[in-house]
Amino acid sequence: MNQSSLTCRYSNVAKALKAVILTLLMIMLWQSALFSQGNFPGSTAGVRAGEATWIWYPGDYAIWLANKMQNRRTERGSFLPVFWKMDSHYVLVEFHKDFELKAPERVRIAAEGRFNIKIDGKALTGSPENIVMPSGKHRLSLKVFNQANVPAVFVSGDDVKSDSSWKVTFEDKEWIDASGKASDKSGTIYQSVGYWNFNSALQKPSQFHLRTKQKQAVKKEFLPDGSILLDFGQETFGYVRLKNITGKGVVRMYYGESREEALSRDSCETLDTIMLQHAVSGFDTMTASTKAFRYVQISTPKGLSIDDADMLYEYAPVTTRGSFSCSDTLINKIWQVANYTLHLNTREFFIDGIKRDRWIWSGDAYQSYLMNYYLFFDQPTVKRTLYALRGKDPVTSHINTIMDYSFYWFMGVKDYFEYTGDSALVRTIYPKMVTLMDYCLSRRNKDGFMEGLPGDWVFIDWADHLTKQGALSFEQLLFCQSLKTMAICARVSNDLKGAAEYSKLSNELTRKLFDVFWDQNRHAFIHSDIGGRSGEQVFRYTNMFALLLGYLDSAKQKEVVSHVLLNKQVQAIHTPYMRFYELEALCAAGKLNVVTGEMRNYWGGMLARGATSFWEQYDPAAKGAAQYAMYGRPFGKSLCHAWGASPIYLLGKYYLGVKPTSPGYQTYEVRPQLGGLKWIKGTVPSADGDIQVYCDAKKISVKSSGIIGVGTLIIQSKTPPTTVQGTIRKIQDGLYKVEILPDQQYVVNYVAM
Amino acid sequence: MNQSSLTCRYSNVAKALKAVILTLLMIMLWQSALFSQGNFPGSTAGVRAGEATWIWYPGDYAIWLANKMQNRRTERGSFLPVFWKMDSHYVLVEFHKDFELKAPERVRIAAEGRFNIKIDGKALTGSPENIVMPSGKHRLSLKVFNQANVPAVFVSGDDVKSDSSWKVTFEDKEWIDASGKASDKSGTIYQSVGYWNFNSALQKPSQFHLRTKQKQAVKKEFLPDGSILLDFGQETFGYVRLKNITGKGVVRMYYGESREEALSRDSCETLDTIMLQHAVSGFDTMTASTKAFRYVQISTPKGLSIDDADMLYEYAPVTTRGSFSCSDTLINKIWQVANYTLHLNTREFFIDGIKRDRWIWSGDAYQSYLMNYYLFFDQPTVKRTLYALRGKDPVTSHINTIMDYSFYWFMGVKDYFEYTGDSALVRTIYPKMVTLMDYCLSRRNKDGFMEGLPGDWVFIDWADHLTKQGALSFEQLLFCQSLKTMAICARVSNDLKGAAEYSKLSNELTRKLFDVFWDQNRHAFIHSDIGGRSGEQVFRYTNMFALLLGYLDSAKQKEVVSHVLLNKQVQAIHTPYMRFYELEALCAAGKLNVVTGEMRNYWGGMLARGATSFWEQYDPAAKGAAQYAMYGRPFGKSLCHAWGASPIYLLGKYYLGVKPTSPGYQTYEVRPQLGGLKWIKGTVPSADGDIQVYCDAKKISVKSSGIIGVGTLIIQSKTPPTTVQGTIRKIQDGLYKVEILPDQQYVVNYVAM
Repeated sequence: MNQSSLTCRYSNVAKALKAVILTLLMIMLWQSALFSQGNFPGSTAGVRAGEATWIWYPGDYAIWLANKMQNRRTERGSFLPVFWKMDSHYVLVEFHKDFELKAPERVRIAAEGRFNIKIDGKALTGSPENIVMPSGKHRLSLKVFNQANVPAVFVSGDDVKSDSSWKVTFEDKEWIDASGKASDKSGTIYQSVGYWNFNSALQKPSQFHLRTKQKQAVKKEFLPDGSILLDFGQETFGYVRLKNITGKGVVRMYYGESREEALSRDSCETLDTIMLQHAVSGFDTMTASTKAFRYVQISTPKGLSIDDADMLYEYAPVTTRGSFSCSDTLINKIWQVANYTLHLNTREFFIDGIKRDRWIWSGDAYQSYLMNYYLFFDQPTVKRTLYALRGKDPVTSHINTIMDYSFYWFMGVKDYFEYTGDSALVRTIYPKMVTLMDYCLSRRNKDGFMEGLPGDWVFIDWADHLTKQGALSFEQLLFCQSLKTMAICARVSNDLKGAAEYSKLSNELTRKLFDVFWDQNRHAFIHSDIGGRSGEQVFRYTNMFALLLGYLDSAKQKEVVSHVLLNKQVQAIHTPYMRFYELEALCAAGKLNVVTGEMRNYWGGMLARGATSFWEQYDPAAKGAAQYAMYGRPFGKSLCHAWGASPIYLLGKYYLGVKPTSPGYQTYEVRPQLGGLKWIKGTVPSADGDIQVYCDAKKISVKSSGIIGVGTLIIQSKTPPTTVQGTIRKIQDGLYKVEILPDQQYVVNYVAM
Repeated sequence: MNQSSLTCRYSNVAKALKAVILTLLMIMLWQSALFSQGNFPGSTAGVRAGEATWIWYPGDYAIWLANKMQNRRTERGSFLPVFWKMDSHYVLVEFHKDFELKAPERVRIAAEGRFNIKIDGKALTGSPENIVMPSGKHRLSLKVFNQANVPAVFVSGDDVKSDSSWKVTFEDKEWIDASGKASDKSGTIYQSVGYWNFNSALQKPSQFHLRTKQKQAVKKEFLPDGSILLDFGQETFGYVRLKNITGKGVVRMYYGESREEALSRDSCETLDTIMLQHAVSGFDTMTASTKAFRYVQISTPKGLSIDDADMLYEYAPVTTRGSFSCSDTLINKIWQVANYTLHLNTREFFIDGIKRDRWIWSGDAYQSYLMNYYLFFDQPTVKRTLYALRGKDPVTSHINTIMDYSFYWFMGVKDYFEYTGDSALVRTIYPKMVTLMDYCLSRRNKDGFMEGLPGDWVFIDWADHLTKQGALSFEQLLFCQSLKTMAICARVSNDLKGAAEYSKLSNELTRKLFDVFWDQNRHAFIHSDIGGRSGEQVFRYTNMFALLLGYLDSAKQKEVVSHVLLNKQVQAIHTPYMRFYELEALCAAGKLNVVTGEMRNYWGGMLARGATSFWEQYDPAAKGAAQYAMYGRPFGKSLCHAWGASPIYLLGKYYLGVKPTSPGYQTYEVRPQLGGLKWIKGTVPSADGDIQVYCDAKKISVKSSGIIGVGTLIIQSKTPPTTVQGTIRKIQDGLYKVEILPDQQYVVNYVAM
């Protein structure tokens, strides 16, 4: 079924009986759609300590859920699936944990799949829902088979509970010989289980769906041909509901992120059909799948009438923990719309955009991770997205088939570890990092560089004149950064040999990067190692990444800023995707005033054109409906794209100036900068708590709430700053610092430069 | 659910409605169980040329079906799944084929899963069931997603049909750039599709099940406590049906391959429960899953009565094409019981035994393949079994975790190719052979030998005193044979570099095998490279395999026959599993008279004890119920084990004397030998036709029907033989040959030696 359709066929013979059954089924469907909200608590922050939760093989739930989500894409009524390998969960897994009980304990068991239960390796008869664990030291094991859904268990007793401390394997190698003697299982690899927030036996992971709430259109317009055009006032996402239908025939819906798109029956990107084969009276129904839209045109045939229509807005129950406001109302509006944009694109996973692909793209997700650390700080969504992107071994292509996207995946693990300090995730995912890196290493050319081989998509950016042949400096830089990530994660995973090897490889590659691609005369990295015009051309990409990733000494930083970043001769960037890094590089180089202006122009430009969420691409020169075209299609462009929300990240990391300096905010830096604004104020979340920052030209105030780590407030001041709460230390002329201890308010008086 | 149970819960409120729905559901279930036979034709010989058939990614259906089958195992009511990795089908695949049509053609489409249809890369709206393919040259593509079942399509028009010529991939890498331009897909690997015999749109592969037919017990006995003991007269397999039940409570069934087992409520290996929570009257029901048994004890509680019970025998609709009869009625009976034994164990796949594991074991399946070539010649069952055993990459352990079983898997591909000539299967499976061989090669010790590493099960045989430490000669010999297989299949797959490498490796290993393990003084291979008593011990295993696989020159053959095979000092073999090879080695060495005697003793011994199918293990010394014990359990032994059916293979290959000498019977040998019998007569099937052979001491007659290849009849005769149909050529003194052309009857008069 690739179209929303609801077909009612009443045969003459069994009409009444079928009607009863149909009604029952519909009631069940509605119940599952509407009442299940109670099952899924309002936060995706994960399981609370000491509580039983559903557990599974790590990563498997993400892979399964991503298959489900990504295969919902349609384009004009046709199913449009991904073009890379989709993997599956392990269908048969064994879970176990050792317990030591003072007294026998009644334990409740729930499982998704066919299962057995063993105590100390001896199977109980059947698959009982209630068991008694004997006192003393015993091992409880469950083995579950499930082809369609992820094998999962929920175990709840007073002490015996399924939680993150359980172990799991997909091959227990538990054979017995002819005498009945069990094998030694020394070759079996046990992993720590995966889990989320399914904290009751009734919340089966396979039944998960996002939450919904009713929304009304703000405007209802009757078109000349009798169709209705609903306007929901802003970009939104969900199901359309039709109410009190009478008659029969085919109802057609044409969705638009813009009014023009919804009115274009021939070119709108998504549409729906609801088919009523037999006459109904007073019938309510809704679309079978979600769509992104602001406008929807509902076209009814003769002989069919609809009383009213509204929508069920579908959303992930993540909490906006970060905040930002300042003296500039346009910047404040930009931050609010960016917040809404990211929220819409934060769903089962971090997706690219809600209208078209609704897929998980590694390059897009990488930016969402970074923004997330300054908005929701939702760790489970990052973990799920990393697992879903990586899939399973064997690696048969780059992530999303794109070379750069494999590298962003590695870098995403690095950032996740730095922001969250979650070494458990690193250790669990490390074997999959190794096999993906093996794939990359096996595809180097004779010079040790990676270049596009058949089947590789070398992306970088949607841009003209950007050749993809040969070894590109951009890809080598990201490759370096991926190798650095490997070295860090190898150490966390106690693979010291690996750590040494990856460090060596990344150092060698860094050296070669500068040898081959750095052009002293042009004060910049050139594009590729192939001669000729485009090979020797300087683009912004490598240069801005080298700056923001810390590959440049201060002399080269300055060269890159003036010869590339602020040089209008170098081809401009048009996608918010790469503007993200361009503006970040400017921030990293201290050019916040430039960035403030760019934000006002570029994001403010979209707002001036009526944007209620930020776009996939924005060209100030395009006018009218032409601004919605992309990929050769009139409405191909997405008007709600995660990568459009980057101001969240820039304002949090460089204006409020908060970032971890050791994993999980054990130590962190707060370096507020006004960037030309009169005052800024906001909150940056972390795993444990929040950091509140206020800054104007004379006063900085900082408070960390609930954070265990120790921060360093860094102040640029014309005169030595003063404070009553802490000790100000001078770093150098005009630069000072104050140590920030937990749960104390620091107010510093200073004179802005 | 791990027990067969049928629970009827009638709430007070909705009793009537639920009853209606329950009845409907049950009618549907019965329909699917009983009437679907019409959907699955009486042969598993595969698709007929020119016919549309369901197609899928090669191997995926086998993997999916094997998961389903192997997870049906229970032991005393507990689910007992396999202990190795279970893989899954690719959930998203793309199928395509290019067609050139003279006129537009209506084409019907059916798919299992969500799908789209493209003509020349352009998607049609929706997922229509009927399309029109335009005239001219066009590509038809379908892309299907299915998480729970295997993505599959059925396409039927006059010329446009889904068949074995379609291509399929799990990653089409069909991206488009910002301008809408499609990628080149030069990195995409397309495979030939997999298929079986689902030759109509209604025969959905996911709905497949084996056929059933009703069978009546031959004896019904009332036990002292009121239980009923049914005897079906012989080993059988299927569902038990209870008829006309009145009352309520729990009906318990205890299955027995022996009477003793069915009577032992505490120790029978399998049992079932049917629970009737609410009183019924005149209710019929059946068990939810199949069991193996001859006897079943049905125990009813007070207040519940059953009028009658019978069974639904479940079987694979394979055809017995091979035949054998001779002057010895005991040997004839052995052949018949072996035929029944193999038929019972030839199901969705070749399984080990029908009572207990019901799993696919590579070592067991290897023997079933060989027997199959002399009985059913069912290629699809061999292919499915090979695919199911191999699973998917990455390889994380040996097949079934057993080192020898990885080697048997390779050898099974070699035999399959030799008997069938199916190079398409070889080419499709070759990449999976390479990765399994990579796994083996990566686990060699410093001497280049494979020895058991942690997690490896080194099996060889159920036998005493057989150490498994160090490098064992037996494993190296099978490793050699696997490398030889790789070289052959590399050539078929046009991997000439691989062929040369594998040949080199197998030659080197063969040389080392003789250097390290051949003991000139003992005229035999010793067991292992570890010194000490057991290391230097001579077992039959390596020696008999070396002989039958052709590793010994004629001098060494004689040494092995007299110093090992016919030497009672060398530890005897007790399993039919290894007796298979022992007797084959004796056959290969020309000792058929010995083999005839052994067959009469060993298999005749089981028959004398009332066997109606051949056992997992037979010890003539064991008496009474003790003969059913194994694995430390009183009824652990299987009384219907595929490996017990080896006389089928020995009588076909060495008595009738028929075997291919080039792939797929392009050339073959017929060398009848009486082995002490007065006359023998039989048929050996091949892919295309049959070879009929008759032989007594004076006359040999041979006819090949429907076979394209050319055979060579080889005759040992005291005097030069005579024939009117062909030309007799002398090979050496006493040895003659006649060329056998298709579809002609050859009668040769000779004088047996």
